[in-house]
Amino acid sequence: MTEQNAGPKKVVLSGLRPTGPCHLGNLAGALRNWIKLQDIYQCYYSIVTWHALSSEYMKSQAIRDNVFEVAIDWLSIGLDPEKCVIFVQSEVKEHAELHLLLSMVTPLPWLERVPTYKEMQAELQDRDIHTYGYLGYPVLQTADIIIYKADIVPVGEDQAPHLELAREITRRFNRIFGPIFPEPQTLLTEVPRLAGTDGRKMSKSFNNAIYLKDSPEVIRGKIAPMITDTRRMRRSDPGEPDDCPVFTFHKAFVPKDKQAEIAQGCRTAGIGCLECKKVVIDALIETLAPFRERRNEFEKNPQRIWDILQEGNRKARRVAQQTMDEVRTALGF
Amino acid sequence: MTEQNAGPKKVVLSGLRPTGPCHLGNLAGALRNWIKLQDIYQCYYSIVTWHALSSEYMKSQAIRDNVFEVAIDWLSIGLDPEKCVIFVQSEVKEHAELHLLLSMVTPLPWLERVPTYKEMQAELQDRDIHTYGYLGYPVLQTADIIIYKADIVPVGEDQAPHLELAREITRRFNRIFGPIFPEPQTLLTEVPRLAGTDGRKMSKSFNNAIYLKDSPEVIRGKIAPMITDTRRMRRSDPGEPDDCPVFTFHKAFVPKDKQAEIAQGCRTAGIGCLECKKVVIDALIETLAPFRERRNEFEKNPQRIWDILQEGNRKARRVAQQTMDEVRTALGF
Repeated sequence: MTEQNAGPKKVVLSGLRPTGPCHLGNLAGALRNWIKLQDIYQCYYSIVTWHALSSEYMKSQAIRDNVFEVAIDWLSIGLDPEKCVIFVQSEVKEHAELHLLLSMVTPLPWLERVPTYKEMQAELQDRDIHTYGYLGYPVLQTADIIIYKADIVPVGEDQAPHLELAREITRRFNRIFGPIFPEPQTLLTEVPRLAGTDGRKMSKSFNNAIYLKDSPEVIRGKIAPMITDTRRMRRSDPGEPDDCPVFTFHKAFVPKDKQAEIAQGCRTAGIGCLECKKVVIDALIETLAPFRERRNEFEKNPQRIWDILQEGNRKARRVAQQTMDEVRTALGF
Repeated sequence: MTEQNAGPKKVVLSGLRPTGPCHLGNLAGALRNWIKLQDIYQCYYSIVTWHALSSEYMKSQAIRDNVFEVAIDWLSIGLDPEKCVIFVQSEVKEHAELHLLLSMVTPLPWLERVPTYKEMQAELQDRDIHTYGYLGYPVLQTADIIIYKADIVPVGEDQAPHLELAREITRRFNRIFGPIFPEPQTLLTEVPRLAGTDGRKMSKSFNNAIYLKDSPEVIRGKIAPMITDTRRMRRSDPGEPDDCPVFTFHKAFVPKDKQAEIAQGCRTAGIGCLECKKVVIDALIETLAPFRERRNEFEKNPQRIWDILQEGNRKARRVAQQTMDEVRTALGF
């Protein structure tokens, strides 16, 4: 806050569902970016428990443990509670109130046409998410964002339609009740599509993830047996890195020049798959070394994690309550 | 609370949307019954502002005024804040939280098949209620009911499917998270279908209602010109009371023996329509005389209405918060 002339910082909001500890996909697609953003903006990072409930309601008991896992991962990877607000969605009840109010002005077809809605139905066939709440996911997401009057939401390309919808809902609300909320802008972030250990997209729900807290041995044990580009039947067969699940890790975690060297080696059969995997295993272990150290420290004092969350909840609540006072006035309530 | 052996009183919940002052339909279909129930049960009567918003969001500024209108009508007609809890839904935020939680376990098809949903779309064609929130009306209604662990909900036959759905949602919630909520039972109440001044069903949305606060002159002015059974073109033509909009008022507000006399007179052309209307006009004016007196008193001190509501909100909130503590524990949050 030294630059008095710069005006108030713009507000950033993002969140993650506490469905398990954080994995490399979360790191590459979100957390690395969040760490940078906390130095520039007023950032709110939310552990979105209610969103987790929308698909995990049959295993809701796990959500609280996962809140802890996510929080300790965030803090260990470098999110700093002195710089950003780290909080738990369901501890700020005002989200539920705004969600309800937004629901009254959100046309049903806007939700029915969200592309990810049908995709997720297909992907998560092991659980029943054909629910009212799941359809309303983007409404709750809109409440999450605008209750902090967020200016900026960092998202990957696949999430951009959700934010477009959030803007539409915001515009409609503002038009009906008055200009309360800024329209949140997309900060399009490159989200490398990381393969999971089975070659599909890395995802907790697919049970194919490499977690930040995995030990070097576990990381090695997960990457070593991974299928590579199927062209490389023999050591002497050249391959195509762009078709290789393992190379998705290089793209995310190995320096560019080293990447180019590996790609070249693969295409000319100059190196073998084991050699290639070793590069990425070493890079990951090195990247995560300071994380592991900090996580060990935090693990010695779990109460500190809960204290940090409680303080974040308090800060978030104060802002959310202020916004809801404005909203109720605008409604005439 | 003198009958110590009787155990705690059963809990009743009912509500009304604050879309305007109360009319004769509300009196005959709900309020008369509520007044009886407050002596037997622990009753919660809710002015359901959020439900009003679901159809009236374009005119939300009127809702606050209508809260006052409804409250003063309720108190003037005989609801007693010493016996029952009179409160405003949107002042108990816990309803919104429970609504969100219920939404996560409510299958979408359950809502899509509610018969009144499509009916209302057709009836309220002057406003756009094809919204997410309107589809979720029964979910919010379920939250309204079970957050007080209501045992009994007095409803007319047309509302019975909503309560059936509320029970289904409650069962599903209990099955997933544990037996927190009693299944609310229907107290089927005779809701006389009152005609409005245009012969259609009396409804604020049709602008054809006779209000409790209407003066004797206004009541006379509304009923006198009403169309009667079309068979009675001339004074000498006999009519059929069961086909006459005006006779719906007799059924609701005129003593049985007098009703029979009037019906007989109509069928034999023994009396004319003016004579028949006079009977009902007199009955209404007499029925509403004590109401008018009490309303005049309350109008002298509007703050008293708001104070009574505030006290009701406080009582309701205490119970709702207790329930939500249980719910959060059951979820593991």
